[in-house]
Order: sequence, then C-alpha cells, then structure tokens
Amino acid sequence: MSASLLVVGSIALDTLRTPFGDVADEPGGSAAFFSVAASFFSPVRLVGVVGEDFPAAGRKVLESRHIDLAGLQVVPGGKTFRWHGSYQGAMNEAKTESVHLNVFGDFRPRIPATFRDSEIVFLANGSPVTQASVLDQVESPALVVADTMNLWIETQKDALMALLGRVDGLVLNEGEARMLAGDQNLVAAAHKILGWGPKFVVVKKGEHGALLVNHGLGSREGTPVKTICPLPAYPSTLVRDPTGAGDSFAGGMMGYLAAGGKYDFPHLMRAMAYGTVTASFAIEDFGLRRFDRLTIDEIDGRLREYHEMLEF
Amino acid sequence: MSASLLVVGSIALDTLRTPFGDVADEPGGSAAFFSVAASFFSPVRLVGVVGEDFPAAGRKVLESRHIDLAGLQVVPGGKTFRWHGSYQGAMNEAKTESVHLNVFGDFRPRIPATFRDSEIVFLANGSPVTQASVLDQVESPALVVADTMNLWIETQKDALMALLGRVDGLVLNEGEARMLAGDQNLVAAAHKILGWGPKFVVVKKGEHGALLVNHGLGSREGTPVKTICPLPAYPSTLVRDPTGAGDSFAGGMMGYLAAGGKYDFPHLMRAMAYGTVTASFAIEDFGLRRFDRLTIDEIDGRLREYHEMLEF
Repeated sequence: MSASLLVVGSIALDTLRTPFGDVADEPGGSAAFFSVAASFFSPVRLVGVVGEDFPAAGRKVLESRHIDLAGLQVVPGGKTFRWHGSYQGAMNEAKTESVHLNVFGDFRPRIPATFRDSEIVFLANGSPVTQASVLDQVESPALVVADTMNLWIETQKDALMALLGRVDGLVLNEGEARMLAGDQNLVAAAHKILGWGPKFVVVKKGEHGALLVNHGLGSREGTPVKTICPLPAYPSTLVRDPTGAGDSFAGGMMGYLAAGGKYDFPHLMRAMAYGTVTASFAIEDFGLRRFDRLTIDEIDGRLREYHEMLEF
Repeated sequence: MSASLLVVGSIALDTLRTPFGDVADEPGGSAAFFSVAASFFSPVRLVGVVGEDFPAAGRKVLESRHIDLAGLQVVPGGKTFRWHGSYQGAMNEAKTESVHLNVFGDFRPRIPATFRDSEIVFLANGSPVTQASVLDQVESPALVVADTMNLWIETQKDALMALLGRVDGLVLNEGEARMLAGDQNLVAAAHKILGWGPKFVVVKKGEHGALLVNHGLGSREGTPVKTICPLPAYPSTLVRDPTGAGDSFAGGMMGYLAAGGKYDFPHLMRAMAYGTVTASFAIEDFGLRRFDRLTIDEIDGRLREYHEMLEF
C-alpha cells in the first residue's frame, strides 16, 4: 500500500555548462529533482518556493508528473533561486560559478493542512533550522529522512545535530560524511553518525555509487539482520549533466519506499538500487529533461540489468 | 582442475608511513603481493629478482605459501628494489618519497624451463618490453593478463599498444584507464581499450571497487551474455596500509581463475569478487602481514558476507 510522501526543498533555475553543451534557466533544484524522480513510483507532495519569474514550462514539468503542488509558494515580484555551475573532464564535481538564493533565502516552509498527515517526509537539502520547522508542522510521520550539505555542517552544526535526533535516516555526500563525523573511513564515519540519532545513513558517492549503513531498521523475518550495503553506480557511458543526480537518487529511493510502505532493511536496499538506476537516467540529459520521456518500464528494465551485473 | 599460474613482476622492500605507524624494509612488490594472494586458491610460479640483501624472513613469507621460487633470481652483491612511500587522511593515494629500482632496473626475466608450460600468465606491472619478453618465453598460455601503469603509458606507449594485441585481459587503475584511452568516462575508456586487443579490461578503483568490461569472453551456456560488472569494494573499517591492495586483488582474481581452470565471464565475475575480498584482508595490516594469519575459510566467509551485502 502506497504511503504519502512529502518533500520540502529548493526549486531552482540552473544555468549550466558541461562538455556536452550549455543551458540557461533550466528548471531544477533539490526538491524538483527529488519529486520528479519519486513520481515514477508514488504520488508526491511538494513544498517549495519560486519567484514570479518561474516559467510556466517549469511548472508544467512538475504537473505532468502529477506532483501535488498545493505547497508551492509563488512570491509576487520575487525571483527564483538561481544556480550557475559548470563541469569539466570526468564531471565528478560541479564548479559553482554563482548562486543567488533570491526567494529561497527567505523560505519559511508552510505545510498545507492536506499535507500534514504525510507518512514519509524527505527534508531535501536546506538549513537544519528550516528542516526542523517542517517536522514541527507534520503530525506523526512513519519515516523521516533528511539530506544535508557541507555549508550546514560548517555553519549550523548544533542545529544539524539536534535535527539528527529527530530523523530516521540521513542522506549525504561522501565528503560531507567525512566532514560531519571527522573520520576519513566512510564506514566508520557512517557508524559515528548513527550514534547521533538516525537509524540509517546513506552516503552518496556519485559515480562510485552509494553506501548504506544501518543499525535501526529490522530485517524481514527469518533472514539475518543486514547492516551494510555498498552499491556501485550503474555504469553509464552517457553522462551529459550530473546536476541533480543525488536528488534523483534520493527521489527514486524514497519513492520506492513510499510505494511499498515498508521500512525494513531489505526494502531499503532495494530502494537504494532503484535510486541508483533512477539517477542513471537523470544524468543522460540536461536538467529534468530525461524524465520527460522516461517510463517505469525503462526503470524496471535497467534495474533488472543492474541486478544481473551484480550476480557473481 | 587447477591451471598452472605464472606471475612475473617486482619484489621490493617497502618503507612506509601510514596514520597507523611506520615500517621499514617490509617485503612487498607487485609479484610478491600477487603471488601470496593467489596462493590461497592455487599453486603459483613466481619469476622475479632480488638483491643479496633480501632478508631470509622475506623469502620465508613466500616459501610458507608454497610459492614455487625456481624463477627467483638473486643478484650477487645487488640491492633489492626499494620503495619509500606514505599515506595520509583517507589513504586513497600513496605519496612516493623515493624509489630505488636497484636490481629490478636491469631485470631481464628468465622463465625457467619448468614454468614454460604455464597455462595462465600474469604480467604484473613492469615495462611492456619486459612483459613482452616473458610472453616470448612461454609456450601457449590459455590466458594472459597484464597490469600496467601511468609511467609506461607516458614513456612506452607503442610497446604497450603492441602488448595489448597479445593479452587476453588488462588490469589497470582508474586514472590510468582514463589516461590510456583519453576518455574521462570509465566505461567508454574500457571499451576503447578493448578495441586494441584485450578481451576484457578490469579497472581498479581502490576504495570504490572495480569495473569489469568484457567483449571477448563467452558466458555459460543458456545464460545471457554479460558484458559489464561493477563491483564495490568490501566496506572495510580497518585499513592500516593500502600498499599492495591492487596486486592482492589481481592475485585473488587470477588465483581463483587458475583454481577453476575456466575463463568465461561468469567465472571472471566471481574471480573479481574473490579479488575484492582478498584485497580487503591485505589492507588490514602492513605489507604482507595479514596474509600470514589468513585462511581460505576466512576468505570464503567474507565472500559470503560480501555476496549478501549485494543481494537487494
């Protein structure tokens, strides 16, 4: 049975340069990538903010995926969050050319009454204070997962630590996990983070896949308790734009969990595999474009292929 | 039925500093790590060179693993190859403090008559000219696999390209694969290398695992042809010294292949998993020390654990 899935985070207009070309004012942002990716598995409720300049085409991308936009604030006269970035060579890392938070800088998420009973909450990257304010507005979610980034680890560590006590799972990048835990060994770093509250940690490693470390989610009856799952990325030859890969990964993962409504370790492993495959599509074209022509059958087909690659 | 396995490469005395301590004149080198790792699966024939200063204890490490040392040359009055390196932080990369090739600089491998019928040949890292001279001395191996490194890609590209036409498989590091192929995308780089001769390429990615790309080895009858296998590294918390991880990986992989005597893609996938697990033991202690107290039961146990981690 499908569980209701709420995501709160940024919606942006991205201007990008990759070895495959340039795009300007491309709809993006963590909550947009997340919700479009998740929508292939489950209905999605989105809370975010844009300016009056957000194009109708961008809104249509979200609407065409049947994302519930009741929580999308449009600030009159405001400008949408803008990120300008570029990628070179192996495209492992984005170089930020400029950031203009615009209306996202004053974002105070207001969760619509119809969203307050959400069973699953994903707090996409944002200030831990803002993320906590979302939790104050939802009733009794069964599963809360947060993303975070180096900026908050550096500037709002206390608020982030407080938030960790309120979430079931934390999703973050490799370098961020090392920074937050102060440990260079990723597995050790994840274990340390688990000591601060979350039941599981998912470390995103970009082209090297992801690592799930768990100590709080049970296993299916009769099977041994698994605590760790390292998954490689899907081996892509077509990588045009890595923007949003991590958020698409999280979207596929959380969308799959919402679809099943089960939050044990085996489901989380499979959810991570779905996240991996979903992200592998996202990077095949600029921004959200690949999702426009993606089907769940393609996702399932690639998951089977990916599964087979790992059957040694 | 076990196939005879020959390895030719360096034997060294390593002086190392890692965050876990210092060691001096520790027995190592590509052929030593390879052969000790492979010896858990299959008998190994070693061809290499050391100086008179190579300690009896170092020789004993090899002898205790029943490695056939008929091809081990000892140069009277000569000094053994020495490498002095250090690792910091996440220990992803060794910093070379100094290298003294000593007797390895003039190494002209002489394959003993009793080794010339070897069915499997592993050309550990060395000049492609030297590697080719080994192939000139063996009769009709069923499987030839070579390792290489950036030095040869930069200085002996023509000889390396000629060698690629004579090997079944190439094993190399991530950065070296990108450099050799001139392509930042690893899968594309591996495909390009396949166009130059090898039937399969194994890209070693250190703490991020390994990638196998194949176009020449068949599959088991009745199963679909698989062409690619991305495996994560075993998620280790105990990493004291990464030296020799890549050679231990190759040793476990080739040793497993030799033990089975089958060179199809499914065996190669499983061999890569064994290589992954074998390498995960090597890094738990300095130099070859962990192998001294390792058993095949431990390897098999960790392989089962690793296999389960990937069952989503």
